[in-house]
Amino acid sequence: MLRSLTGIRRMSKLSTVIKELEAFAPTVFAEKWDNVGLLIEPYRKEGAEEHTVNRILLTNDLTEPVMKEAIEKQAELIISYHPPIFKPLTKITQNHWKERVVSACLANSIALYSPHTAWDKVVGGVNDWLAKVLVMKSIKPLVQEVGALPGNGSGRLVETNVPIGQLINRLQEHIENCVHVAYAVGHTGSTVIHTVGICAGSGASLLRDVQADLIITGEMSHHELLDFQHRGTTVLLCNHSNSERGFLREFQPKLNIMLDGSCQIFVSEKDKDPLVTLTRTSAAGDAPVATQQTN
Amino acid sequence: MLRSLTGIRRMSKLSTVIKELEAFAPTVFAEKWDNVGLLIEPYRKEGAEEHTVNRILLTNDLTEPVMKEAIEKQAELIISYHPPIFKPLTKITQNHWKERVVSACLANSIALYSPHTAWDKVVGGVNDWLAKVLVMKSIKPLVQEVGALPGNGSGRLVETNVPIGQLINRLQEHIENCVHVAYAVGHTGSTVIHTVGICAGSGASLLRDVQADLIITGEMSHHELLDFQHRGTTVLLCNHSNSERGFLREFQPKLNIMLDGSCQIFVSEKDKDPLVTLTRTSAAGDAPVATQQTN
Amino acid sequence: MLRSLTGIRRMSKLSTVIKELEAFAPTVFAEKWDNVGLLIEPYRKEGAEEHTVNRILLTNDLTEPVMKEAIEKQAELIISYHPPIFKPLTKITQNHWKERVVSACLANSIALYSPHTAWDKVVGGVNDWLAKVLVMKSIKPLVQEVGALPGNGSGRLVETNVPIGQLINRLQEHIENCVHVAYAVGHTGSTVIHTVGICAGSGASLLRDVQADLIITGEMSHHELLDFQHRGTTVLLCNHSNSERGFLREFQPKLNIMLDGSCQIFVSEKDKDPLVTLTRTSAAGDAPVATQQTN
Amino acid sequence: MLRSLTGIRRMSKLSTVIKELEAFAPTVFAEKWDNVGLLIEPYRKEGAEEHTVNRILLTNDLTEPVMKEAIEKQAELIISYHPPIFKPLTKITQNHWKERVVSACLANSIALYSPHTAWDKVVGGVNDWLAKVLVMKSIKPLVQEVGALPGNGSGRLVETNVPIGQLINRLQEHIENCVHVAYAVGHTGSTVIHTVGICAGSGASLLRDVQADLIITGEMSHHELLDFQHRGTTVLLCNHSNSERGFLREFQPKLNIMLDGSCQIFVSEKDKDPLVTLTRTSAAGDAPVATQQTN
Amino acid sequence: MLRSLTGIRRMSKLSTVIKELEAFAPTVFAEKWDNVGLLIEPYRKEGAEEHTVNRILLTNDLTEPVMKEAIEKQAELIISYHPPIFKPLTKITQNHWKERVVSACLANSIALYSPHTAWDKVVGGVNDWLAKVLVMKSIKPLVQEVGALPGNGSGRLVETNVPIGQLINRLQEHIENCVHVAYAVGHTGSTVIHTVGICAGSGASLLRDVQADLIITGEMSHHELLDFQHRGTTVLLCNHSNSERGFLREFQPKLNIMLDGSCQIFVSEKDKDPLVTLTRTSAAGDAPVATQQTN
Amino acid sequence: MLRSLTGIRRMSKLSTVIKELEAFAPTVFAEKWDNVGLLIEPYRKEGAEEHTVNRILLTNDLTEPVMKEAIEKQAELIISYHPPIFKPLTKITQNHWKERVVSACLANSIALYSPHTAWDKVVGGVNDWLAKVLVMKSIKPLVQEVGALPGNGSGRLVETNVPIGQLINRLQEHIENCVHVAYAVGHTGSTVIHTVGICAGSGASLLRDVQADLIITGEMSHHELLDFQHRGTTVLLCNHSNSERGFLREFQPKLNIMLDGSCQIFVSEKDKDPLVTLTRTSAAGDAPVATQQTN
Repeated sequence: MLRSLTGIRRMSKLSTVIKELEAFAPTVFAEKWDNVGLLIEPYRKEGAEEHTVNRILLTNDLTEPVMKEAIEKQAELIISYHPPIFKPLTKITQNHWKERVVSACLANSIALYSPHTAWDKVVGGVNDWLAKVLVMKSIKPLVQEVGALPGNGSGRLVETNVPIGQLINRLQEHIENCVHVAYAVGHTGSTVIHTVGICAGSGASLLRDVQADLIITGEMSHHELLDFQHRGTTVLLCNHSNSERGFLREFQPKLNIMLDGSCQIFVSEKDKDPLVTLTRTSAAGDAPVATQQTN
Repeated sequence: MLRSLTGIRRMSKLSTVIKELEAFAPTVFAEKWDNVGLLIEPYRKEGAEEHTVNRILLTNDLTEPVMKEAIEKQAELIISYHPPIFKPLTKITQNHWKERVVSACLANSIALYSPHTAWDKVVGGVNDWLAKVLVMKSIKPLVQEVGALPGNGSGRLVETNVPIGQLINRLQEHIENCVHVAYAVGHTGSTVIHTVGICAGSGASLLRDVQADLIITGEMSHHELLDFQHRGTTVLLCNHSNSERGFLREFQPKLNIMLDGSCQIFVSEKDKDPLVTLTRTSAAGDAPVATQQTN
Repeated sequence: MLRSLTGIRRMSKLSTVIKELEAFAPTVFAEKWDNVGLLIEPYRKEGAEEHTVNRILLTNDLTEPVMKEAIEKQAELIISYHPPIFKPLTKITQNHWKERVVSACLANSIALYSPHTAWDKVVGGVNDWLAKVLVMKSIKPLVQEVGALPGNGSGRLVETNVPIGQLINRLQEHIENCVHVAYAVGHTGSTVIHTVGICAGSGASLLRDVQADLIITGEMSHHELLDFQHRGTTVLLCNHSNSERGFLREFQPKLNIMLDGSCQIFVSEKDKDPLVTLTRTSAAGDAPVATQQTN
Repeated sequence: MLRSLTGIRRMSKLSTVIKELEAFAPTVFAEKWDNVGLLIEPYRKEGAEEHTVNRILLTNDLTEPVMKEAIEKQAELIISYHPPIFKPLTKITQNHWKERVVSACLANSIALYSPHTAWDKVVGGVNDWLAKVLVMKSIKPLVQEVGALPGNGSGRLVETNVPIGQLINRLQEHIENCVHVAYAVGHTGSTVIHTVGICAGSGASLLRDVQADLIITGEMSHHELLDFQHRGTTVLLCNHSNSERGFLREFQPKLNIMLDGSCQIFVSEKDKDPLVTLTRTSAAGDAPVATQQTN
Repeated sequence: MLRSLTGIRRMSKLSTVIKELEAFAPTVFAEKWDNVGLLIEPYRKEGAEEHTVNRILLTNDLTEPVMKEAIEKQAELIISYHPPIFKPLTKITQNHWKERVVSACLANSIALYSPHTAWDKVVGGVNDWLAKVLVMKSIKPLVQEVGALPGNGSGRLVETNVPIGQLINRLQEHIENCVHVAYAVGHTGSTVIHTVGICAGSGASLLRDVQADLIITGEMSHHELLDFQHRGTTVLLCNHSNSERGFLREFQPKLNIMLDGSCQIFVSEKDKDPLVTLTRTSAAGDAPVATQQTN
Repeated sequence: MLRSLTGIRRMSKLSTVIKELEAFAPTVFAEKWDNVGLLIEPYRKEGAEEHTVNRILLTNDLTEPVMKEAIEKQAELIISYHPPIFKPLTKITQNHWKERVVSACLANSIALYSPHTAWDKVVGGVNDWLAKVLVMKSIKPLVQEVGALPGNGSGRLVETNVPIGQLINRLQEHIENCVHVAYAVGHTGSTVIHTVGICAGSGASLLRDVQADLIITGEMSHHELLDFQHRGTTVLLCNHSNSERGFLREFQPKLNIMLDGSCQIFVSEKDKDPLVTLTRTSAAGDAPVATQQTN
């Protein structure tokens, strides 16, 4: 690597990295109920310099296997799409995985930043990544963010023209995983749909009042599915994090450019959706076959 | 059919059928937030006799295709496991599917009974049916119902001894459908588990504080799954209604005996889980392949 | 019947009648807590035509005697000023009169429409009918409806000039029934009043902060009456529905014109206020004498 | 005055009178939401003796005419069945009648005591007085008071055997005023009733779940009346305070005995129900005729 | 006194005095949770003239010693900075000191007016009096009152330039009492401060988000003090009422001018802060020494 | 140091220390709203041994100066009477002192334990230490803890016999600091008191309904003080933490015995009450004189 050869050790101040992240997707536009931005900042002795960052790990969920990976990779900053602190903490012990993760960050001087709904809303963010599965005639947010530039906001509404079966195939390619479908009453794989509502993650409440032929989201409850089916809306589910995770590979080179190559940026190899769907096999004794990638 | 041959026309009064249903699983033990029992009783002109029942349709969800089937089969009573009226109604028009279903019942003189959590709790009910997938050393409710006989209550906790992979195969056979698995941190298909928590439907809140190696339920959100994984509990998901529907085939002959053969009892052919999981196929142009039965 | 003879079969689509009713008094202006508009729409088989209306029954309250009358008169639409569904329904059985009424409508293919506070607010509606008892110098709503034309809104405030005793006589003629009076401290039958607050039905909360010499409403509690008396406001009570019912006779011909004579319109003969005031007679053994019309 | 002549100056300490009132009907048994007991105690200069009572005025409502009467009669204590302070006071000015009444008591050294629901519940109290209109086979509270002797509690349930018409006549005699009736669906004046629910004042919420052929109370709203009518319960309304006031005449001699004749006890001459029902007269120009006593 | 000599008896109507008080500091600008203005108005017999005022007593708190002083001084109006009625009253007996004070006012025909937060906010009011301890470069409200002239509003923010120790000395002189100090981490008596937040009374919630080197208020809880100390803000506490009381001496001559000398105006001699701080003496047997004036 | 000489390295596992602390004062008896027990447990790498403790720092408040002292003293455990985490945390950055303290503990492998109200309630705890200022005839909790041994519970009520002035002197000696007094109306330094209510810290709500001649607590608001004064209760205030801190010196040797001398135990030298009362000096230019110890 050139930088090693030239002996130039490059790195960034934590505040510089955060400035770039905020320039891409201002956390001020995140949902009111959300917990975003710099969640953990390493301890700084009186008079000490600001925390510096050389290695950054990107992950969708900061599980303990991912935390271990971050320590092994000597990351000084983790960017976790989902905020690892959501329910506020009254204690930080070794009894609960989220408290263990917090203590691991602080004991290993690793900063933690979470963008969550700020990335959902921003142009070029998570929902726009998910929408790329479609040949789009038009796209706009389901709810335009007040005070933000046009195009920023919650969810996306896309005009298109595609048979459902073909869209399912494309979605499986896009998320590199299997898809669950709930056909609307009267729909089949050959039904051509024209409007698609999109919400990465858990989209039922946002999509509730959207008029669309089809919606793509991560997860939805049984009774919500029945409601959409009877309103004439087919639902495609990717599993929660499979509707989000693919964005990280797209963001990695973007962030590299933002930081002018000053940091090494990894996408976690341990981060994956908790669920694997197993095909029902004919012979009961056989091992079940996973229908999706399990890294 | 013997009854036709002998010319004996047999039927039951609605109140007689309800009495038997309540004897099997008293709705007084249903959850406080639930809406159970006789939900629709056909209009009775002043001085008219009580509604009589000859044909009964059993269903997990009273969707519009199932409602149509009930009319075609000339059912006088629908027993729908899930209550079709849950959010209280302020209007009954043709604009919302639940209002259409209610008006269809009343216009066609069809009574509607929903047992829901009363069937979950009762000995020999929905959770006990789901537990049959296991070779059990012991079984007891997660929460024994106060005032009811021992064994009645919410969820089930089972002692057993089985590798996870083998259990998944058995579960696929039992529910006749595919299964989704979230392995606990450290678990694999060959891990032998000893305690299993069971809750048909949506079990996260009930199972939250249960110490078990594995839990079987219908559906669970992403963040709940991560919590179970980090507590050492593998989760098997069947899809919400696939964790419940199989009980109906077991209940059909039981009800026939309870009613002394006085009614014809059908299990709906149109009732099915809204979701189908599609295998990711290699060739993008091909139609996706469903990994589960779609009736 | 003449129409039969001439072979002209006249009737309206339900949506046409509703369109006219909404043109007269848009339900969008009803109170937020109210439950108005089309409350019951008869069941329509898949592919069936829209419900048609030939006979309309107008009533203040949809009691069971009125419901029976509607069936006997073969009404296809009931317009009930008070909404028969107010507390939302979780069941529709034969155990509660409101559930019986709902089931009767649906079993007999009778639509149900309720205007309630939309009719109270509209110019030419219920409060304007009640105000006709006065020789008015001016009239305006107590609360002008935002977004509606001037004159529409809750309650009425009237400038006039009349002794209380004379007004009572006129009110008895107007509502064709007896009146209850609570004289303000210092008022007598010969006190001349200049400002009158009007609110059909139960007007205490709306009238609470109104400065008026006298108010006319349907009913009011004891402690509310004492408050008005001590503020210098005499209260005339008509009984709740007697302050509203007279409007129906005025509305009947109006509706006929709106619908271009396409429907037969009846005012219920069974609808009446639940209360009858009985005169105290001198001889204890005698039957008490009703002081108001009891049909 | 005889007492002056004999030189015997008789009077009671305020605390002595209150002790007797509490012995008759302990205010500890009043409803939690109620405001009962000694509400106003005259100012006592440092070191001054306790307030003494020679003249007591009994009233149902402490209106301003009654307050004036109390001052004229030189009462040192007013016993007002309804508490004149109910909504707590943040100011005591001359702008609101209740504040004027409070200031009048304090400026004129008049104590104020209110028993309200304590008198409703006690054996021999307001509800028992109202029940005397019936020939009783049995009587018991609707809700027995926990911790009190049997027979004390809210409302009364009476077994009897009387045609409604005859009962109405007796009630008119008992309250010395007119009565309003709402016949149950199917009831007429000659229907014989066997169970009667009683609640002086405003009894709808207490009587809501009572199974009775007929109920007697003071006032009830239109929609509550319709509910009772459709449940087979005829309702007799006396007007709120006419269902209570008659008890004062019965209590006057009782209190005299309790206080051993030490005080003069007056029943207010100005206290009366705010409402008067006026008969509809044939000739419009005539003065309306009151159907009830107006003192 | 000149007025006596000339035989001119001067006095004011209560409404005139209130009009002047409201002109100085409109109570419409008081906090929403506050209870201000004319709280007690003496009883006025039917037809009587308005209450007149000759002697006015100013006090910070209307304690019982101050109440006694008011009666002895024959005041017809008490102006109590803190409202003696705050928690609304359900009774007015001799059992609680606030009820005794209310009854004393009404029995002795003394009106009561409280300005409280209206005086805090007004230009020239309580906070401006407290700010006089500082040599000010600039002063403005912490929160400018909407709808009021610039300078009116809650609290004050002052720019200055003074060592903390010197300011403490000045504050002790200004309030004529001892002061409690909580030095910010890093501050000492010689630290020069430039911005000062001021809030008479209990200022923690108002001052919470103010950036200031030092704040002056009356009282503050332990945990609030620790928060300020760690934010770099030194806190000076005067005791609650010592941060307010001095204003009364300044207001006395102002009010005299407003009323054109028509009333005698006294500042209470009995009103004082409840707390006295006692110096720790070396000899245990000695009487402790008060470090502040105790009148 | 002996231990060094003998070469015996003694220390305790964290769980052992906590076991002893819980044996002394079980945190299960702390208030429901409190946040007690092990609040911070240092990060433990997968497979690592449990945290061990050699040096323990006792403090009343974990301020930043005390945190610095803990690091300098190489403490492995801080026992902070007040819980440093009270408002739950959503972030742990370097912007707020409580977050800095939490990060300092985790970065320096220091455990944190807080007993708070568990120590208040226990026999031999903080309130009992405060009560030692009195010559007691009897002592009992204000509220006996349900399920705990007699004597454990909130606050203390003591019977004694002492003039107030003498008690103040003793209290100054006991807390080694100055005292603030609010004399009840009628009390002076020579009044002999017989019942004393005690509540370390902020005791107004607990003491509100206690009948006592005098109460001792840490801090109380102005309006609470006025209420106690008018109820005949003199109040002695120590400043919040001065009513608690002295217990630590008493607890230090106790804990040493509990831990069998296995740990070094320090009482913080930096921990002190935030407030210092300054005597008003006659010469304005002089530095103010602190009336209390400032370590």
